[in-house]
Amino acid sequence: MNKSLFLATMLVSSSAMAMEALPMSPPIPADNPMSDAKIELGKQLYFDPRLSIDGTVSCNSCHNVMATGTDSRPTSVGIDGQRGGRNAPTVWNAAFLSAQFWDGRAATLEDQAKGPPLNPIEMGMPSEKAVVDRLKAIPGYKDQFNSIFGKVSYDNMAKAIAAYERTLITPNSPFDLYIKGDKAAMNDKAVAGMKLFENIGCAGCHSGANFAGPKLPIGQGFYQKFPANDSKYTAKYDLKADKGRYEATKDKSDMHMWRVPTLRNVALTAPYFHNGSVNTLPEAVRVMSKTQLNKTLNDKQVEKIVAFLESLTGEFPVQTMPRLPDTSTTSLVGTIK
Amino acid sequence: MNKSLFLATMLVSSSAMAMEALPMSPPIPADNPMSDAKIELGKQLYFDPRLSIDGTVSCNSCHNVMATGTDSRPTSVGIDGQRGGRNAPTVWNAAFLSAQFWDGRAATLEDQAKGPPLNPIEMGMPSEKAVVDRLKAIPGYKDQFNSIFGKVSYDNMAKAIAAYERTLITPNSPFDLYIKGDKAAMNDKAVAGMKLFENIGCAGCHSGANFAGPKLPIGQGFYQKFPANDSKYTAKYDLKADKGRYEATKDKSDMHMWRVPTLRNVALTAPYFHNGSVNTLPEAVRVMSKTQLNKTLNDKQVEKIVAFLESLTGEFPVQTMPRLPDTSTTSLVGTIK
Repeated sequence: MNKSLFLATMLVSSSAMAMEALPMSPPIPADNPMSDAKIELGKQLYFDPRLSIDGTVSCNSCHNVMATGTDSRPTSVGIDGQRGGRNAPTVWNAAFLSAQFWDGRAATLEDQAKGPPLNPIEMGMPSEKAVVDRLKAIPGYKDQFNSIFGKVSYDNMAKAIAAYERTLITPNSPFDLYIKGDKAAMNDKAVAGMKLFENIGCAGCHSGANFAGPKLPIGQGFYQKFPANDSKYTAKYDLKADKGRYEATKDKSDMHMWRVPTLRNVALTAPYFHNGSVNTLPEAVRVMSKTQLNKTLNDKQVEKIVAFLESLTGEFPVQTMPRLPDTSTTSLVGTIK
Repeated sequence: MNKSLFLATMLVSSSAMAMEALPMSPPIPADNPMSDAKIELGKQLYFDPRLSIDGTVSCNSCHNVMATGTDSRPTSVGIDGQRGGRNAPTVWNAAFLSAQFWDGRAATLEDQAKGPPLNPIEMGMPSEKAVVDRLKAIPGYKDQFNSIFGKVSYDNMAKAIAAYERTLITPNSPFDLYIKGDKAAMNDKAVAGMKLFENIGCAGCHSGANFAGPKLPIGQGFYQKFPANDSKYTAKYDLKADKGRYEATKDKSDMHMWRVPTLRNVALTAPYFHNGSVNTLPEAVRVMSKTQLNKTLNDKQVEKIVAFLESLTGEFPVQTMPRLPDTSTTSLVGTIK
């Protein structure tokens, strides 16, 4: 067991059972304070397909904030119709996670945002310089970067996107209202499901305000082995083909370790698991209880837990569309066929 | 010369020279009146990638209303990375066109909206029924269709999308302000360019409020042959590989005939022409003057006309993002790999 896992396990033992409402604002890093101008720039960048080599893929393509913050697909589609290897995690409430990506290989939202533009399967830009050159060629971006950061840079691009993502929070789910005292906000089945969720052990890992583990310092991910137990599901859903965090660290103690994902809005983010292999939430609940807790739930128990998970769907804020700054008389992606 | 072209040519002769500001609202068909609810539903559908078989392509993917209403690419990319054959026309102000698509094969915005979902290269849905079945499986859509139209149908989907598109209008360009009396709205170069645009004959076809030809009854397209004259550009930009309206009608009089495109916001919609083969507006002006008017412009003339065309960039209205209605606990596109 590596050190961070050991620490995380200690924390779980002491804090798992206290359920928490979602805070109205996430942690803000000292080196990337929020401002309206930065958030607005980040929103433009988030929606801008010119961050991909051929102008077809934006952050929003796979993390659709008009919907669930995902693409509702098993794995995502990048440039040239290429398929990625893992299911797109939702961007909603990602600001509360202490590590990003399924394998936690990025400590912060800023680090995460630097990945996809350069990934050859996703957005396919050849280098940080190529991204920066393109941003500099768009007068509206150049002006905003200069005003907010003093210059266009790849790091500053990531800071702006991360600032925008920190606004993507879904408070006031039925569960949150219930925890804050409105006992009518959850129906009886959902309340029964919540108790079952605690009693059988789901809350051992899916704890904290984001149901993604205890509060940890940013950069310190909360990981668990999945599947913890082999069962018929291992083969049926091909759960072990991907070695998880081991792929990033090559540390044997990370074999099949995964960052515990949030359960906020989980009723909307099908299909499930790192490979998107399970298409419905009831089946995902069955798989998890078997593989992680070695328990076989009956249909009534599954229904109750699903009712509880549905109560974690929050309020999605109304947003204005960004205007993507233009290039006049020429297209930056127009010569690439 | 076919009948509609003959009529169009007659109209051009009498009306080309009267330049017009963009109206604040487009024609509304009697069988599809506007309503806030319908426009909102149409906006959701316009942005919903679940109208494509694998959940990756929405109307907005190729006609990006956060930007130029196009995808800034030579030709568009549909499902599985497939490339279409023609440049995506802008959706902004398309409501003022009397025929849709480059070849005018759809009479109305409603007819146009029915094309891409079933196009195997674009959104790849197998049938109208498959689209309707998917919409019916999304409770939020079913409720809205029932409330607005009485039922979910493919025609009603197209009506809602068309209603939204009729809100996509960019008034108050420098040209519009100038025409309405604010003579400071256009600079001297742009005014000189406007005069040149009229004097050398561009306005013979690019007339009317949308600079896409005279006002004609909906369904009656305004077509011209392109290239009208062969030149070095025919081979250089492969201008005759696509036979234009002939591909739709198989009528020899339609060979290389194209619907005259709008010049509204043309400075932002590079690359240019039906095949997106020309990457800059100055070059597009050179090509047009040579192929259509058999005139070779010098650099100063090109600059003036480009300055005029830049004055046709209007105001893009602020829009709120739609919320795409959810499916709970399952994904409609999740089982398709």
